Amino acid sequence: MQQQYYNFCAGPAALPTTVLQRAQDELLNWQGRGVSVMEMSHRHPAFMELAETAEINLRRLLNIPNHYKVLFLQGGATTQFAVLPMNLLADLASADYLDTGIWSAKAIAAMAPFGQARLAANFAGKNQVPSKTQLQLDPQAAYVHYCPNETISGLAFDYVPDTGSVPLVADMSSVLLSTPLEVNRFGLIYAGAQKNIGPAGLTLVIVREDLLGRARPETPGPLNYTLQAAQNSMLNTPPTLAWYLAAMVFEWLLEQGGLSTIAEQNQLKARLLYEQIDSSTLYINTIKPTCRSMMNVTFTLDNPDLEILFLAQAEAAGILSLKGHRAVGGMRASIYNAVPVAAVKTLIEFMADFERRH
Amino acid sequence: MQQQYYNFCAGPAALPTTVLQRAQDELLNWQGRGVSVMEMSHRHPAFMELAETAEINLRRLLNIPNHYKVLFLQGGATTQFAVLPMNLLADLASADYLDTGIWSAKAIAAMAPFGQARLAANFAGKNQVPSKTQLQLDPQAAYVHYCPNETISGLAFDYVPDTGSVPLVADMSSVLLSTPLEVNRFGLIYAGAQKNIGPAGLTLVIVREDLLGRARPETPGPLNYTLQAAQNSMLNTPPTLAWYLAAMVFEWLLEQGGLSTIAEQNQLKARLLYEQIDSSTLYINTIKPTCRSMMNVTFTLDNPDLEILFLAQAEAAGILSLKGHRAVGGMRASIYNAVPVAAVKTLIEFMADFERRH
Repeated sequence: MQQQYYNFCAGPAALPTTVLQRAQDELLNWQGRGVSVMEMSHRHPAFMELAETAEINLRRLLNIPNHYKVLFLQGGATTQFAVLPMNLLADLASADYLDTGIWSAKAIAAMAPFGQARLAANFAGKNQVPSKTQLQLDPQAAYVHYCPNETISGLAFDYVPDTGSVPLVADMSSVLLSTPLEVNRFGLIYAGAQKNIGPAGLTLVIVREDLLGRARPETPGPLNYTLQAAQNSMLNTPPTLAWYLAAMVFEWLLEQGGLSTIAEQNQLKARLLYEQIDSSTLYINTIKPTCRSMMNVTFTLDNPDLEILFLAQAEAAGILSLKGHRAVGGMRASIYNAVPVAAVKTLIEFMADFERRH
Repeated sequence: MQQQYYNFCAGPAALPTTVLQRAQDELLNWQGRGVSVMEMSHRHPAFMELAETAEINLRRLLNIPNHYKVLFLQGGATTQFAVLPMNLLADLASADYLDTGIWSAKAIAAMAPFGQARLAANFAGKNQVPSKTQLQLDPQAAYVHYCPNETISGLAFDYVPDTGSVPLVADMSSVLLSTPLEVNRFGLIYAGAQKNIGPAGLTLVIVREDLLGRARPETPGPLNYTLQAAQNSMLNTPPTLAWYLAAMVFEWLLEQGGLSTIAEQNQLKARLLYEQIDSSTLYINTIKPTCRSMMNVTFTLDNPDLEILFLAQAEAAGILSLKGHRAVGGMRASIYNAVPVAAVKTLIEFMADFERRH
């Protein structure tokens, strides 16, 4: 019997098996055209149709209003950290940033050459996010930036900050498409694809139209929101293979019943896992319960000497990539959309069994 | 009988069939690990080994000296047009550019916000490249930029410019890996992957170490050569799927006998095609013979009314993507490494037959 595997990688992460199977089936001959989808011009009518359908499906999934543009870019969220002020700061002096951990801190650091990254909340290293009343927002800020889900620590906002007329910008790399979203609460949303969207190498940007037109001239064309919006993200050759895979993920999400259904499953997976942790004396998660991530469940072992053994035995049981980020150590189970409930149940059983044995 | 297809797309272009077959075989289970290569962390030892082996093989293919760094980036050559001055201009006022067509002109336009793009040769719209004596180089230039192969017009340099102590920078998107190269003649070489390297979404940069350390602070981290060189191109999540496919293309090239063997085949393919054009009264290529591209063979029909028919009949015969770039029209057969000699022979037979019939 072939061993079953359960992939909890934080990213590049698990993709839906049916999507990979379809990609495999048609890898050398897409739509009966005699070539791979990755061997075709992005301006071929068939690929243009794929791209257009992908956007339509993404808009349907997230209920994206018409006055938002959807961009399919390259470079990952880390590139956006600098590209964001290039595109949005204009002649303003500062933007507000909420510091809640490693990813938001990276975004703050990347802002330095462009203007002031004013800390509207400094919660670095804390096990909770700022409450609504703890946000010290500057009404003159170019935008307010935050990271709704800190993938490394497993910390998440349980609310969308109200920033009034200042555009709210969110690095949603690890949560976009995991749950329904009120897009109109945001000025701009961006996300690297390699969690819930597709393979690494694609970056989604959803931007309100009135924020276009203010990019600095130094902005590289393919990273200029305004130019890419005008060219349907084809100012230059886009990452067609990644786009194609993301398009199939969007279809898969619609087939699953859309984001409400997916969110229910994600909530169930997270609840099961946190319950296992909380009912144990071996596993520890110190994040404030209301701020626990639904996507990245982190935990340490009461006896740290057991962590290497835990990881090794998990891997031997086919439970992969539980090692925490190298910046913080410990364990992390990333339970993105494509991780089935059954995988989480297997992990829980393993955790219970491991605890009994140690 | 299944129809045979011949893919002459200018990019994203044909990939070696054996590479696609291997990718297909292991798409859901890479190295027996139970997950796809695109579902693994880029920091997993197995992926790190893949990345390292890819670099070793690329270095072997191009005989890259040790004092050059190899970077695997995102964004395509068009992103590099702006990223290049960000990284290399430092406090110098200008860089020299050779204008030989649409791609070099785009690089020139992207330089504007950073400094002067001084025209060391203005051959835009000409059917030849400047001769060695026609280059008017500024010894104070930060670098000299040129495009050895203008993909759209099918125009190529038949020599490497001698720029003395000024670093020579080349956009080799459509020629890198098509023929052996004296890397030490260059300060920096860059190329989008989607011609001879792999799928769209990966960009190679080969940079001499002494050119590092001068990036502007605004440069996004993942596009900062210095930071990426220090991190083995893993400052952030790289496009792992594209990297994996490129790694297999490098292996395929070594299996073919390396770049000398590939270059012989490429020369043969180009010679056959240009001979067909030159011996015909219907097909026209106006590029000066010594400046004809070995990768992109452009031609028009003496009777332009026949072009649509030519393209339609070619497509019906399985000969795909011969339509010239929308900026110039006409026909273009891109005959990159993965296009076999047999495909070119089929095209030539079709061209001869079409000419007989019209």
